[in-house]
Amino acid sequence: MKRKDDSTPIASRRGFLTSAAGIAAITGTGIGTDVLAAGSADAAVRSAPKGQTEPFWGPHQGGILTPQQKHTYFAAFDLVTDQQGDIAKLLQSWTLAAERMTTGQTAQAMDGGLSPAVVRVNTQAYGSHATPDPATLAGDTGEALDLNPARLTVTFGFGPGLFVKDGNDRYGLAHLRPEALVDMPKFASDQLVEAQTGGDLSVQACADDPQVAFHAIRQLARLADGSAQIRWVQTGFLPNAGSSGTPRNLMGFKDGTINPPPRDPKAMEQFVWAGTEGPNWIRGGSYMVVRRIRIALEHWDQMKVAFQEQAVGRHKYTGAPLGKKNERDELDLKATDSDGNLVVPENAHVRLAAAATNDGAQILRRPYSYNVGADVIAERWPPWRQALEYDAGLFFVCYQRDPRIGFIKIYEKMSKFDTMNQFVTHVGGGLFACPRGAAQGEYIGQNLLQSA
Amino acid sequence: MKRKDDSTPIASRRGFLTSAAGIAAITGTGIGTDVLAAGSADAAVRSAPKGQTEPFWGPHQGGILTPQQKHTYFAAFDLVTDQQGDIAKLLQSWTLAAERMTTGQTAQAMDGGLSPAVVRVNTQAYGSHATPDPATLAGDTGEALDLNPARLTVTFGFGPGLFVKDGNDRYGLAHLRPEALVDMPKFASDQLVEAQTGGDLSVQACADDPQVAFHAIRQLARLADGSAQIRWVQTGFLPNAGSSGTPRNLMGFKDGTINPPPRDPKAMEQFVWAGTEGPNWIRGGSYMVVRRIRIALEHWDQMKVAFQEQAVGRHKYTGAPLGKKNERDELDLKATDSDGNLVVPENAHVRLAAAATNDGAQILRRPYSYNVGADVIAERWPPWRQALEYDAGLFFVCYQRDPRIGFIKIYEKMSKFDTMNQFVTHVGGGLFACPRGAAQGEYIGQNLLQSA
Repeated sequence: MKRKDDSTPIASRRGFLTSAAGIAAITGTGIGTDVLAAGSADAAVRSAPKGQTEPFWGPHQGGILTPQQKHTYFAAFDLVTDQQGDIAKLLQSWTLAAERMTTGQTAQAMDGGLSPAVVRVNTQAYGSHATPDPATLAGDTGEALDLNPARLTVTFGFGPGLFVKDGNDRYGLAHLRPEALVDMPKFASDQLVEAQTGGDLSVQACADDPQVAFHAIRQLARLADGSAQIRWVQTGFLPNAGSSGTPRNLMGFKDGTINPPPRDPKAMEQFVWAGTEGPNWIRGGSYMVVRRIRIALEHWDQMKVAFQEQAVGRHKYTGAPLGKKNERDELDLKATDSDGNLVVPENAHVRLAAAATNDGAQILRRPYSYNVGADVIAERWPPWRQALEYDAGLFFVCYQRDPRIGFIKIYEKMSKFDTMNQFVTHVGGGLFACPRGAAQGEYIGQNLLQSA
Repeated sequence: MKRKDDSTPIASRRGFLTSAAGIAAITGTGIGTDVLAAGSADAAVRSAPKGQTEPFWGPHQGGILTPQQKHTYFAAFDLVTDQQGDIAKLLQSWTLAAERMTTGQTAQAMDGGLSPAVVRVNTQAYGSHATPDPATLAGDTGEALDLNPARLTVTFGFGPGLFVKDGNDRYGLAHLRPEALVDMPKFASDQLVEAQTGGDLSVQACADDPQVAFHAIRQLARLADGSAQIRWVQTGFLPNAGSSGTPRNLMGFKDGTINPPPRDPKAMEQFVWAGTEGPNWIRGGSYMVVRRIRIALEHWDQMKVAFQEQAVGRHKYTGAPLGKKNERDELDLKATDSDGNLVVPENAHVRLAAAATNDGAQILRRPYSYNVGADVIAERWPPWRQALEYDAGLFFVCYQRDPRIGFIKIYEKMSKFDTMNQFVTHVGGGLFACPRGAAQGEYIGQNLLQSA
């Protein structure tokens, strides 16, 4: 797929309209002019003030250390091709489209550019009812045309299925699977729904606008047709109304106080970026664990604040560790009260998550809340209530150098002992190896596919 | 429920913490101080810059003419009490809590204030596993504590079931049901899901922050326990990234160009506010129609732009009516091209929606996009594809003086002929009579309940 400047597609679009019977005489000129005004990607880039774009090219992918945007749309894909070459093509077109969108451009030039393979598949899917015309299908679905890039980042990951699926080395990549990209163990209290778990590829769009984030995934899914298809998706958000501190999650607690410092390259090398321990393509990349965690908010809301604080291990309003005054005060796991009881209880969330409890393990957390409606649940504890309940909770996202000494190590214990498990249920998720970033002219994952 | 100033609950909260064994010695003083800093509603109100609050008290409810906020959370409730008195109490507590939240305060004073009835119900629901203590259950779940009001509005409505349910005049209010609050007819192509349709009461929270909007409904649902319970909910959003014009919906088209002007009181009297034709309590109120409209985006995205424009009746990029240049150019339904064909096709969406096609009918549209994930659908047209598809579309919201000459009249024809029906499916919704606003010291719906 060749990138073109933006005068070309507009000219082509006008040409197409001129040839469409009926409306040509009236619309031809008008639309051409207006598209120049409204849809020019160059204009969009030029007019995007600083602070609205995040870099795409670079040694690391965006969306990992990037200061967290307010919205996310995540998609896991299943590969449906049997050709390794299709994967390289897919990653090339995804890279180009993602980079365009992070700078406020349309995913492709507006006159299309969908590959023949894509058109073939869609034609089959929709039959004679609606045969798309490759010459005139728009290169972008258009819902982000007036919007700025909203700090869009697009982060790509590879699931175990890219390397081995059902014991089958589908693409000749099995020998390049990093040891750290394990099959996720089943944890105590896991209630993962198959249809919201796993995937061969992952793409996470993060942006300060929900429409920009969804738009990005929607364009990539459209480009993937014939090679990959969406397996599951997940929306997420953070509060945005004037809070400059650590955002509160839906349990009302500040979430994300303890994180290794993203601006400290040494800490990032130690905890986030893969090093020489794995294959070359993952060096400078990271391992992403995502978990869809449903929270029984109605149940939680009936707990006294004092109980909630004991479960979390922090004070609700200040975010301070129990027994401390300020959010950033050090967590003292040994402190006892005058009766000799631990101030931070044995099974408090913060104790079980702490590096000190996990041989120094740290992960870079980038969690979002999610809230998609309400549906009927059946509770797992007395009185085994069946009720309509918010389908809301946490879309937990974290990055680490090695999940075996990161999320898996930490969560193994938490999944058994965390008091919060009474209120939270992991219902989906996955583990993905996010390759290092691409330099301009490269594509994401190029190093993997060229090593095959 | 009496409103208190904010020093009282904080003092009480500190009193409770002091009496809680185990953590009192360590946390008592610290948390008291910090709650004063972080949780003081007075401080929040004082610090909320102009432009972050919308008025609550007034002749009309907020959220109708209010410039549209970026996020919404809507809930329909079923009444579960058999006492008319409970409804008055519910509306009183809802009014007080809603007003507090629109000014950035917690829903109630933080030391609780839940009525005995609520506590009783919750204790039953959760059994001995988790008996809430009425003296210490927090009056607010806390997730909006650091956030400004984000222009929150809360709009209340009454469904037919408040007046008559299954032929039963449950609350002695049947004689006060307005004629205009009809049972919604079944439209051609309706595929309403019972569990996402109707409701005795409606509450719509709109705010520029998704957490603020959800927080408001969550507090009101908590207050409703014992009197009403959530039947269905709906999230919605608008793009926010620097678009000053008419926002695009997920079909990529500008949505909401034609609306009666909210700043023209005469137009609002004519099209939006109920007048003397109904019972006294609805005068100055309005009728709200909501529809959850799922859009087959994958299908739509395979259509040529020219086809999409013919379906909508507008140009995609400019928003101009077909054959015109600018979005605000007048819609000319009689224009023909050189072959004598209508420029705006017979079954184009804008033609069927136009006032001129509907004896002058106009409705005030306040639509949101929604996007909650993806699930498996079965298509209604060839090739009857079963596939994972975005669960996304439009949460259509509109207000009118009388739905019989508003939404019902307009949609009756659209539901049969609109070309867009190939791509959109109405899967839920309802009709609610939104009473006039309350003056300070009144509660929403007071006039109705005092007339009973």
